[in-house]
Amino acid sequence: MKELRVDLGNQRSYPIYIGSGLLQQADLLRRHIRSKQVLVVSNETVAPLYLNQVLANLADYQTEAAILPDGEQYKTLHYLEKIFDGLLANKFSRNATLIALGGGVIGDMGGFAAACYQRGIAFIQIPTTLLAQVDSSVGGKTGVNHALGKNMIGAFYQPQCVIADADVLDTLDDRQLSAGLAEVIKYGLIRDPEFLHWLEANLPNLLARDKAALAYAIERSCINKAEVVGEDEFESGVRATLNLGHTFGHAIETGSGYGHYLHGEAVAIGTCFAADLSRRLGWLLDADVARIIAIFKAANLPVTPPADMTTEQYVDLMAVDKKNVDGKIRVILLEALGKASLPVNIDLAQLQATLNGYAG
Amino acid sequence: MKELRVDLGNQRSYPIYIGSGLLQQADLLRRHIRSKQVLVVSNETVAPLYLNQVLANLADYQTEAAILPDGEQYKTLHYLEKIFDGLLANKFSRNATLIALGGGVIGDMGGFAAACYQRGIAFIQIPTTLLAQVDSSVGGKTGVNHALGKNMIGAFYQPQCVIADADVLDTLDDRQLSAGLAEVIKYGLIRDPEFLHWLEANLPNLLARDKAALAYAIERSCINKAEVVGEDEFESGVRATLNLGHTFGHAIETGSGYGHYLHGEAVAIGTCFAADLSRRLGWLLDADVARIIAIFKAANLPVTPPADMTTEQYVDLMAVDKKNVDGKIRVILLEALGKASLPVNIDLAQLQATLNGYAG
Repeated sequence: MKELRVDLGNQRSYPIYIGSGLLQQADLLRRHIRSKQVLVVSNETVAPLYLNQVLANLADYQTEAAILPDGEQYKTLHYLEKIFDGLLANKFSRNATLIALGGGVIGDMGGFAAACYQRGIAFIQIPTTLLAQVDSSVGGKTGVNHALGKNMIGAFYQPQCVIADADVLDTLDDRQLSAGLAEVIKYGLIRDPEFLHWLEANLPNLLARDKAALAYAIERSCINKAEVVGEDEFESGVRATLNLGHTFGHAIETGSGYGHYLHGEAVAIGTCFAADLSRRLGWLLDADVARIIAIFKAANLPVTPPADMTTEQYVDLMAVDKKNVDGKIRVILLEALGKASLPVNIDLAQLQATLNGYAG
Repeated sequence: MKELRVDLGNQRSYPIYIGSGLLQQADLLRRHIRSKQVLVVSNETVAPLYLNQVLANLADYQTEAAILPDGEQYKTLHYLEKIFDGLLANKFSRNATLIALGGGVIGDMGGFAAACYQRGIAFIQIPTTLLAQVDSSVGGKTGVNHALGKNMIGAFYQPQCVIADADVLDTLDDRQLSAGLAEVIKYGLIRDPEFLHWLEANLPNLLARDKAALAYAIERSCINKAEVVGEDEFESGVRATLNLGHTFGHAIETGSGYGHYLHGEAVAIGTCFAADLSRRLGWLLDADVARIIAIFKAANLPVTPPADMTTEQYVDLMAVDKKNVDGKIRVILLEALGKASLPVNIDLAQLQATLNGYAG
């Protein structure tokens, strides 16, 4: 087992455990629980696979479970209330602990519920998708979607720990595995060119679920994520670079209806947009853009946008991105392969050129 | 105008302005707004009276308003979503400012919406009820109710400033004025015996809306509140004493249906419960309890509980109070007139004796 640390320079710092067989290590979980009451939040896909194992580790606690339907379309205030129902129906106190057992949707919702219940209870992330293990479970961004914008309602709220058991990826379907790789590739593109090289060489191994390759990719991703979050917990600067491809991607997710694209798929397409726009600004070469498209294709990710979204829709949806100031659109671009820009104010004509001209 | 400061020892510290004609002082408001976009959250009672005045101060901003129905029964996640609708429909960015113009419900909901929108935007409290001016607008407790418990979903989130214009109390109805006095009296009971004396002598002046008396009561209440919050922002200790009467009071509000009692009315009844329990523990004399009941009666506040709530209902509802640990009920009691206890673990038999025996 590897142990990394998200060092926030304060008492909110916490460990990330990465390895095999971690779900069977009861002590790893129990050492982070300081209460008798534990609510496990999971979904209808993950709970049948792993809920009993987690509960078996907590036989002497008052454990309850809140099981949500599976999918981005359920990441709403309405379904968040189901978690509060579970906490209140069982009379859970402010010293209770919430465990989020699932992918990014469950982690974001569980974390946000923990942030809000009685103005804040402890929570633990047990991510069960590659995407959640390498990205969303680390760093304390929690929240739900709104019909008009992705992740628009939420909180910065850090977990007590993250337990990333690579074994759970055995039950992940191929589409979800690829979606996770989109965020893995992101780290290479924004700040880790050496990792980008490694990924280009090792994508076949990752897709073949080679354990050592996956473990390395998770660890290296988490190291990158922990460094960035440690530097800028509340996204006043460099943390925004983790949003490469996300402004376009969120527009695609919202515009095509939550749940149609997986988050990682939309990020892959969005990153191709960002690469194109970076090329138009003279920052990337045609060859760089081709390399980015190639690596996403090699990961079995989509690189062309939905056929039915208009330029106007993108502009409209991107106008509520969290990086914007006074309603002006800002995006993260690439200054080079392995180096992201801070948020860039985008000239609408340049943006429209990318939106109109991009053809994958 | 008086200016107090909530000193939290960090950048979240902020001023409270108390005085007459403050709503007409555009600069007071404008100096705390660092964006072009401003959403005013208010309700159907307050907006017709004061919204135009607030907007007139902000003629050169992009201003929008979200108007909610008036009442505790609308302090829910469902109506919170209306505020997010207003922010998103107008494409408000993370640097936007939210102004809460109203009583405690609007302040709590507006503050919570500000805490969650894009994971946090700036907000300003303009309290328009006595209760909000002396208590709920100060200290950063925000949130909404759940069918199973009052204020169960929320955040600690501090405003940029609080603007308490005593003139707005001219339009407050008598019942709301009395409800506010319940929290004013609370400060006397928990930590300011001299103020308690002053209140006993001056209640007739306050009920007659004597401007000088009201201004003094607001200021002295805010000084007390600011001191306690400055000492313990996140309620790990002394701040819980502000909850005197609230554990019983919240149970009455939830049990009798939100909106039936005003919050201050439920707190008055709840404080009589707490006084009775304090007497049973040998901390208060019969004469002390009589004095507490007398002062609430003099403020035209109820001192007897709803006829139709059972002991079992109280115990059930109090089991989800935020002060509880592992589901065990804890309440704030009075060690003497002017001195509150920290949360006390309550023996169920003692509690039931109070619940059964209390007759006003």
